Amino acid sequence: MHNYFFHDVDLRPVGEKVYVQSEHGEPVPMRRIRLTDTPACFGGAKNPDFYLSDVTGPYGETDAPESIELPKRDRPEPGTGTQLARARRGEVTPEMSFVATRENANIEGFRASLEACGNDKLANRLRPILDRLIPWTGELVRQKIADRTAVIPASFCHPELEPTVIGRHFTTKVNANFGTSSSSKDWREEGRKLQEALARGADTVMDLSTGKSIIETREMILRASPVPVGTVPLYETLERAGGDPLDMNWEIFRETMEDQAKAGVDYMTIHAGLLMPHVELTRGRLTGIVSRGGGMMARWMRSYKRENFLYEHFDEILDIAEHYDITLSLGDGLRSGSIYDGNDAAQFAELKTLGELNRRAGARNVQVMIEGPGHIPMPGVELNRVKEADLCDDAPFYTLGPLVTDIGAGYDHITAAIGGAMIGAAGTAMLCYVTPKEHLGLPNSKDVREGMVAFKLAAHAADVARGVPGAIIRDHLMSHARFEFRWADQFALALDPARAREFHDETLPGAAAQKAHFCSMCGPKFCPMKLAHDLFDDED
Amino acid sequence: MHNYFFHDVDLRPVGEKVYVQSEHGEPVPMRRIRLTDTPACFGGAKNPDFYLSDVTGPYGETDAPESIELPKRDRPEPGTGTQLARARRGEVTPEMSFVATRENANIEGFRASLEACGNDKLANRLRPILDRLIPWTGELVRQKIADRTAVIPASFCHPELEPTVIGRHFTTKVNANFGTSSSSKDWREEGRKLQEALARGADTVMDLSTGKSIIETREMILRASPVPVGTVPLYETLERAGGDPLDMNWEIFRETMEDQAKAGVDYMTIHAGLLMPHVELTRGRLTGIVSRGGGMMARWMRSYKRENFLYEHFDEILDIAEHYDITLSLGDGLRSGSIYDGNDAAQFAELKTLGELNRRAGARNVQVMIEGPGHIPMPGVELNRVKEADLCDDAPFYTLGPLVTDIGAGYDHITAAIGGAMIGAAGTAMLCYVTPKEHLGLPNSKDVREGMVAFKLAAHAADVARGVPGAIIRDHLMSHARFEFRWADQFALALDPARAREFHDETLPGAAAQKAHFCSMCGPKFCPMKLAHDLFDDED
Repeated sequence: MHNYFFHDVDLRPVGEKVYVQSEHGEPVPMRRIRLTDTPACFGGAKNPDFYLSDVTGPYGETDAPESIELPKRDRPEPGTGTQLARARRGEVTPEMSFVATRENANIEGFRASLEACGNDKLANRLRPILDRLIPWTGELVRQKIADRTAVIPASFCHPELEPTVIGRHFTTKVNANFGTSSSSKDWREEGRKLQEALARGADTVMDLSTGKSIIETREMILRASPVPVGTVPLYETLERAGGDPLDMNWEIFRETMEDQAKAGVDYMTIHAGLLMPHVELTRGRLTGIVSRGGGMMARWMRSYKRENFLYEHFDEILDIAEHYDITLSLGDGLRSGSIYDGNDAAQFAELKTLGELNRRAGARNVQVMIEGPGHIPMPGVELNRVKEADLCDDAPFYTLGPLVTDIGAGYDHITAAIGGAMIGAAGTAMLCYVTPKEHLGLPNSKDVREGMVAFKLAAHAADVARGVPGAIIRDHLMSHARFEFRWADQFALALDPARAREFHDETLPGAAAQKAHFCSMCGPKFCPMKLAHDLFDDED
Repeated sequence: MHNYFFHDVDLRPVGEKVYVQSEHGEPVPMRRIRLTDTPACFGGAKNPDFYLSDVTGPYGETDAPESIELPKRDRPEPGTGTQLARARRGEVTPEMSFVATRENANIEGFRASLEACGNDKLANRLRPILDRLIPWTGELVRQKIADRTAVIPASFCHPELEPTVIGRHFTTKVNANFGTSSSSKDWREEGRKLQEALARGADTVMDLSTGKSIIETREMILRASPVPVGTVPLYETLERAGGDPLDMNWEIFRETMEDQAKAGVDYMTIHAGLLMPHVELTRGRLTGIVSRGGGMMARWMRSYKRENFLYEHFDEILDIAEHYDITLSLGDGLRSGSIYDGNDAAQFAELKTLGELNRRAGARNVQVMIEGPGHIPMPGVELNRVKEADLCDDAPFYTLGPLVTDIGAGYDHITAAIGGAMIGAAGTAMLCYVTPKEHLGLPNSKDVREGMVAFKLAAHAADVARGVPGAIIRDHLMSHARFEFRWADQFALALDPARAREFHDETLPGAAAQKAHFCSMCGPKFCPMKLAHDLFDDED
């Protein structure tokens, strides 16, 4: 048994981990933030407990042990019927109950705490938002799975998983990529990146390993991850074929996919929509093909003058996916690698084929996400979501950024967070993070943190734009704490409490500063919020 | 004479500094990037020289001396007639010529180099973009100054200035704030921040100093800055009044404003649009008033039950502004400090008054910018620009972000870059940067770098969205270099060449890696661009 726990990554950033029972009686993890009282000079009111969804698994327990083996949930045998098959039969699965409870993030507990604490001023502000809330139930989730606007990636073979739901009706999810490569073979380092990603709230992770350590890295990630794990089986196929794309074939791919399914991979990127005529459309491109899987398949097709074997054998891919309940993430092999190529005929031709494959998968009860770009200038961002909804029947959209300019090297987590927030607001279900190392090199765990927080920020901004009550309330509680100079509460409600505290303490360290009614930005004399506080006091 | 040059800030990031003559014969600084040849295996074509606008002043000279005194341009005596007055008379000033040349960023030189280098493939891609370019002339700039959709902040008393133009027809500008405070009194550190901001392309800077070192800091910034310098005179007014807002009055303000004008401040934030009825509208706000000037004035008004003295004496403010050609930046004292307060009645009521003041200033030949928010959720961002254009006659809009969520503490340069890119695409003329320290403390020079690059990125993405040919071409040249693995060119074309190089070299150091046809992200076997390169070679 490996010890997967890295003590230099703190997954217990703030509050206490608590559990709320799902309709099936399973404990669903949350993090409770006990907001402190309003300072006496501002009226001394009590403030409620607030809850955040928590993905840290056993690593985030208040008393995490030295070595952690993840608890295993009861899972049916493969072949029992996918989430989609069971949803269509009217069955509410334990996973549907689990994700319903998870999505609600105990907002009913928050409502009760808000009413109990007697802070009328705050309650009056927040009640209109709470009143428009319709809490998720297992049955409501089932309907979204059945109509294929949402997926629950949960392989029968991944008992360590705490499931999540991905779809535009739910909170915007963030995926973190990592994995070994020929120039970085240490799977232990990837374990550190996994924990770093979980600490910052990764809803799913993808192991994109290539090279020699591919199997042991994936095994480590699967056994150590409480969130869904995705892969791109074509990478291992290339490795098994000896490294030359021309030596890849369907048989090797099938074996690889089946082995990965048995190991417990929850979702797989499959580049089955990239066809020979689409490759032809890339001739005039500035940056050709920038998807690794897409590049390999295009090479294979052009060399043999034969159609994509993933397309040719898509029914057999569906066999495996249905048997293990692997969610297919239909890959955009022709996503644009430059704004010049953005929204071009090649990209949208492939998207149309992804729509056809999505319907074929639906007929086989296989869950599907659709992958999206890439590099797109701002005015073209929303069109991607509009076309995806149209061509792919509103299947969950899963984008990489998009990046809104090409010149951000070193800061492309920001370039991509701009496009990610915009496409998230337009209804994209999951954003794949981009790290500051994009276009320059393999990210390290520091880069994972920067990329994750930038994308949790973009996803949260999208949730606010989409009117998600819990997201809006978190913003209001933050600003409420800010206006009352409750520094500890501000840190707790921030996306990265440790960073917020570190930056604050850099110029105003010490316990007294945590209660000061100013920060070093304006200093004590110039704080406008301090000045604004008693503006209307003379009339109270 | 102070030595303003800090040798630990390298302002010579890339290429050579060159000069292009303006219509008036003045040298206008540019940075020339000599792109390297396409590698032989990809055809070995020549690539053109590209030019970037350069704001580094003498600090950015290839052989910068130990101590630098900025050269002084010939400036008329105060009272000679503002840029607006002269534009209305049909006069093309030296400043209009200068900014026209600066805006063009020698794209004609690029076009000539492109045609000369014989790279037909590249030229065919870029010609359609170049063909829709109408180069700026002094006369075209004059028209935009005359119709008040653009300003050239250039005080008669700031001879060190290399002027710039701010308006939605021109490239999106970025302002950097800094300044001493009661908790950070060292003006030398502010000089370092100035250089850091210039190194990352700050188009203007604001000295927001408060506290004891206010005058010597401003004098240092003015004498050391080749870009326009803005201030908020109310801060020094408070200092002169002894620190209590209630002791401020019009006489102290007038003296302060006049002294700052004589010292050479190019533009001033004036909170004259915040009226007593507007303050009343903030009663239900979550975060009250978050503008320092706004908070001070609101306090003063509420205490004395008297109207804002800046509004009452606005004609006298115009006297000073007209005499010295100070551009007024009409401050939004009621900008929202939380998404809860965003786009509320208070904010838009003040904006309407700013529109009235803008018209009064126009009648007196005083140049005006309008300041904007603040915290605004994504769906409300564009409305701010729409309303500003409507209520303020399309005067140059100058926004702080906006920040699209409240919970980004520690990463609010990203929160604000998202909103900044969006509002820039909607026609905002200048973005005030936000640093990662926002809401937490006073930024240091490292924070200045992060904030500056995030905002240059947002402004550039906005320029791409607005169809600015030079911006789009820079993206295409970057992607062209990327597809040909010309690493040095990618670094040179990136927003922060040093950071891009550092990140690349972290995993693939050494000279050989600069010529490698892969990076550590995918490694040599998996690079899709490498695979894509010879896809169609069999038919060539």
